[in-house]
Amino acid sequence: MRDFDETNITAAVLDRFTATPDPRLKQIMQSLVRHLHDFARDVELTFEEWQYAIDYLTRTGRMCTDKRQEFILLSDTLGLSMLVDAINHRMPDGATETTVLGPFYVAGPPEFPLGADIAGSLPGEPLLVDGSVSGADGRPLAGAIVDVWQADRDGYYDVQRPELETALLRARFHTGADGKFSFKSVMPSFYPIPDDGPVGDMLQATARHPNRPAHIHFMIAAEGYQTLVTHVFAADSPYLDSDAVFGVKNSLIADFTRHDSGDGRMTGPFRFLTYDFGLKPSGK
Amino acid sequence: MRDFDETNITAAVLDRFTATPDPRLKQIMQSLVRHLHDFARDVELTFEEWQYAIDYLTRTGRMCTDKRQEFILLSDTLGLSMLVDAINHRMPDGATETTVLGPFYVAGPPEFPLGADIAGSLPGEPLLVDGSVSGADGRPLAGAIVDVWQADRDGYYDVQRPELETALLRARFHTGADGKFSFKSVMPSFYPIPDDGPVGDMLQATARHPNRPAHIHFMIAAEGYQTLVTHVFAADSPYLDSDAVFGVKNSLIADFTRHDSGDGRMTGPFRFLTYDFGLKPSGK
Repeated sequence: MRDFDETNITAAVLDRFTATPDPRLKQIMQSLVRHLHDFARDVELTFEEWQYAIDYLTRTGRMCTDKRQEFILLSDTLGLSMLVDAINHRMPDGATETTVLGPFYVAGPPEFPLGADIAGSLPGEPLLVDGSVSGADGRPLAGAIVDVWQADRDGYYDVQRPELETALLRARFHTGADGKFSFKSVMPSFYPIPDDGPVGDMLQATARHPNRPAHIHFMIAAEGYQTLVTHVFAADSPYLDSDAVFGVKNSLIADFTRHDSGDGRMTGPFRFLTYDFGLKPSGK
Repeated sequence: MRDFDETNITAAVLDRFTATPDPRLKQIMQSLVRHLHDFARDVELTFEEWQYAIDYLTRTGRMCTDKRQEFILLSDTLGLSMLVDAINHRMPDGATETTVLGPFYVAGPPEFPLGADIAGSLPGEPLLVDGSVSGADGRPLAGAIVDVWQADRDGYYDVQRPELETALLRARFHTGADGKFSFKSVMPSFYPIPDDGPVGDMLQATARHPNRPAHIHFMIAAEGYQTLVTHVFAADSPYLDSDAVFGVKNSLIADFTRHDSGDGRMTGPFRFLTYDFGLKPSGK
């Protein structure tokens, strides 16, 4: 075929994908082309705007390192990540709701014993976390893998502080026989997502703030269950109603209660979070 | 807002763009979000597919250098580049049709006098090109800037041959008082677009060939006229009906005629192309 115009080119491109061996890939590519072309026609994209988009995507790719994933940030700030999350996690009763992975997860975090302090020497308001992991039916899950990561009191993750020599506020625990885990830390702060790159340019140009409410990330895995990727948000944090990445769910907001003195495990005033996580069985 | 699900999240994200100061940017971002979300819902994109897409875009960004633009290749092979071209170039009678820029243009090509040989020492079938530039009304345009770039007889551009020390098959001419230009070269071959990167992975997975029919690129600029970006395709080339980037238009196909001996400018057998380019006035 030759001589495509703005109406017949889409059919020609769709036709070019008809021989795709994998039917799922064929479906995805054809839908992608259809929606991409509809977008360009809808706004009558100019050549200069197309050039800007090419350059924007190129800059976004160049910002990506093993410690920064600018395309995930872009997906997050366009609400795509939470949409994909919603499509794939229609949760049964008793299962904890999910939210975005975010760009700061690092595979293979350092393992800690239950009760350990994951803040090292970092300053901040002391925090004690008691958690439990069960199946959606309430049965406690022993030996579940609980990965935790969070920002510090200034809103930075360890990977954003090049002066740190070890992982901090980032750990892996295994639940005990009763399905429980606990650790000590410091209160995370709300924070801006990294806004010195292309995603920051987009937020600034569209008059959006880059902030996320204070939260702790959890990724919890157990055999026979779907891996849970979620956060627990602090109920007294700003930005719960305007999270830059659309990740807040009411069921994930918890009180980080204030206590004046220890419970035997803490000395002096501290904040206390307790949260019970429910996992969805695999294949359901 | 909180507690987004797969149906209400799109309205929430669109709402977040309402304060965008530039109305055109607001229109583009809201349309982009609408179509991007529709795509994800349409195919029920899985988390693993989303992760693959993030990695694919990251790899595409990492392939980009000052000599290779993988995002342009991706846009080209998805038909987006030709769609944008069609939207923006509804041409009046007498104006030459446009086609894709492609990833191999290099700004500021070396200037040559009319009649020069731009192939240097590269082997190939000798080619003589006579062209003219006029307004769409037929008036010859003196001093028009004519940028030319093309593949060699093996289908490679100079920037794909790191052993070359100077630009070859890449030149800038200025039309004479009669609006004409001419140069000597070698016949370009059809060629595969660079398929050792993410775009090549996509073509292979979808059982598409990577080839483009033989052509010479032209970018022609003159004051008071819109800059023309186009190719002239060789009528005897394979792949005219299945160009990997959907760039072929019948009006851009020309005979590269065969001649046994020179016309005074050529010695021995050569191919001859003559093509008259018409430019569209600015702002029309």
